[in-house]
Amino acid sequence: MRIGHAQRIGDGALTGTTVVVPGPDGAVAGVDVRGGGPGTRETDALDPRTLVDRVHAVVLSGGSAYGLASASGVMDALGDARIGFRVGADPSEVVPIVPAAVVFDLGRGGDFRARPDAALGAAALAAAVEGPSAQGVVGAGTGALVGGLKGGVGTASETTASGTVTALCVVNAAGSAVDPRTGELWAVRHLTDEDATPPALPADRTALLTRIAAAGAPPTLNTTIGTVWTDAALTVAQCAKLAAVAHSGLARAIRPTHGMTDGDTFFGLSTTERPAPDLAGLQALLTAGADVVTRAVGNAVLAAETVSVAGGTYRSYRDVVAG
Amino acid sequence: MRIGHAQRIGDGALTGTTVVVPGPDGAVAGVDVRGGGPGTRETDALDPRTLVDRVHAVVLSGGSAYGLASASGVMDALGDARIGFRVGADPSEVVPIVPAAVVFDLGRGGDFRARPDAALGAAALAAAVEGPSAQGVVGAGTGALVGGLKGGVGTASETTASGTVTALCVVNAAGSAVDPRTGELWAVRHLTDEDATPPALPADRTALLTRIAAAGAPPTLNTTIGTVWTDAALTVAQCAKLAAVAHSGLARAIRPTHGMTDGDTFFGLSTTERPAPDLAGLQALLTAGADVVTRAVGNAVLAAETVSVAGGTYRSYRDVVAG
Repeated sequence: MRIGHAQRIGDGALTGTTVVVPGPDGAVAGVDVRGGGPGTRETDALDPRTLVDRVHAVVLSGGSAYGLASASGVMDALGDARIGFRVGADPSEVVPIVPAAVVFDLGRGGDFRARPDAALGAAALAAAVEGPSAQGVVGAGTGALVGGLKGGVGTASETTASGTVTALCVVNAAGSAVDPRTGELWAVRHLTDEDATPPALPADRTALLTRIAAAGAPPTLNTTIGTVWTDAALTVAQCAKLAAVAHSGLARAIRPTHGMTDGDTFFGLSTTERPAPDLAGLQALLTAGADVVTRAVGNAVLAAETVSVAGGTYRSYRDVVAG
Repeated sequence: MRIGHAQRIGDGALTGTTVVVPGPDGAVAGVDVRGGGPGTRETDALDPRTLVDRVHAVVLSGGSAYGLASASGVMDALGDARIGFRVGADPSEVVPIVPAAVVFDLGRGGDFRARPDAALGAAALAAAVEGPSAQGVVGAGTGALVGGLKGGVGTASETTASGTVTALCVVNAAGSAVDPRTGELWAVRHLTDEDATPPALPADRTALLTRIAAAGAPPTLNTTIGTVWTDAALTVAQCAKLAAVAHSGLARAIRPTHGMTDGDTFFGLSTTERPAPDLAGLQALLTAGADVVTRAVGNAVLAAETVSVAGGTYRSYRDVVAG
């Protein structure tokens, strides 16, 4: 799986687009939309009752519904590369299946009209590389906020006996990633040695909690979106189940979540490189699918850095903890 | 309700976009996706459990999933006009809610890459006018085929005690609008004095049936899409119900329908200009909602004219009946 990020920061902009790109044959995919304010594209094609079972990229983008335009740039570039669902006799006759979901970040850079377009989607695709993804203020996480602190992109991975499971989340929630009683991340009990190390909390916990509360005015519209993928062979319905448990992982990392102003959406993908799991193997994959999302949310918050642009200064959790 | 069409015919193109535009406050909307190969945008926002209940335009487009780009042009133009869901303090801070669905017509004009883009969507919006819509080879129906004959755009309207119900369909199906045993339109028993008059069938019915069968090689991918709207006040869930019965009307007019290669999708809209109906009134609206779709399909086929472009000659039902 290749990941590509493109972003615009400054001149009124604080937004970006992230593309998750399987091999040219695509990946089996399902989706679960559980937020009250979703902005999506091509999710109906992921219903298990439909003809198409593979996607050729998943686009995660800022820009609210305007940002769905970024998927058009990805589609055009994939189509030019003859990657897509074959619809005619000639190999060039393909329709790339490119589902997309967006987060609300309009105006955070200062200019309400600075939002991802088709060109930014194409740039994210062109930047896609294998290996660990960049995290923090990058791609679709560029303009993200979580509970009034700086959000961003986070990832995490776990290997089970049946296959690996990896999550990439764009953390942008009305709810908070921080327990207001302790100042700890909600995700902290799920983090592993592979994850970022949370900062040591100051002895004066009351002062910390006051700083967090002061920074924590939730913006009006939000949304956490992400993609969870495995190399185990799953059906479309099982990919939708993987996307569903991703929301369980989200619920452990952010509170509240899945509200009316969150458009929380997850895509579940299978590259089918490994055999289909048996029931116990599938259960282990699903448990891991939730856990990697919780950890990815924690990693996003821990990787995010304070950003100052014309639209405002958005402080990171680390900086608020440091004082 | 205003309707706008834009199309490209010639130079390899045979495609277009149609926009259904309520007043600036939008219309309550629901959706029902029942085909096996849908291409859609912003349908998740129409779930009755979500925050947004009004749409500011519905885009129907050729170009398969590539054609979803046309909705971006409509969104940008509506946003510039400050029409949309208000997300900030300034009146310019709006996100237009513009669901879209597409039909497959790629390559029918001769050039597989000639497909609707954002500019064509904006052109369709700019062309939107009140009053009866153009029918036949126009807008999203420009490249449409039905059972191998020329398809297109069709409309029909009915007034009930609780309100009027109007359908606009883009008829582009793998199935046929013609009964292969008689040569009649399947819709013929539902047409009224307000609809187009079907042609008199020739005495030599066997020759007619042979001509229809010869013309009737179904293309590989299709989809009938449409919008049904009423002035009676409906909830989002009731609008989704109106969209659901639209598929019943489609089933009466085309056989087979809702197959794996059809992406059949209907939007149901309420302008809320008249009071909410009681149960009997709602039942009457739903009965009418199915009937206007059946009639609209018939009108689309009867309005379609034979088209000859680089991609081929697509004969109309009327011309095939005439010999």
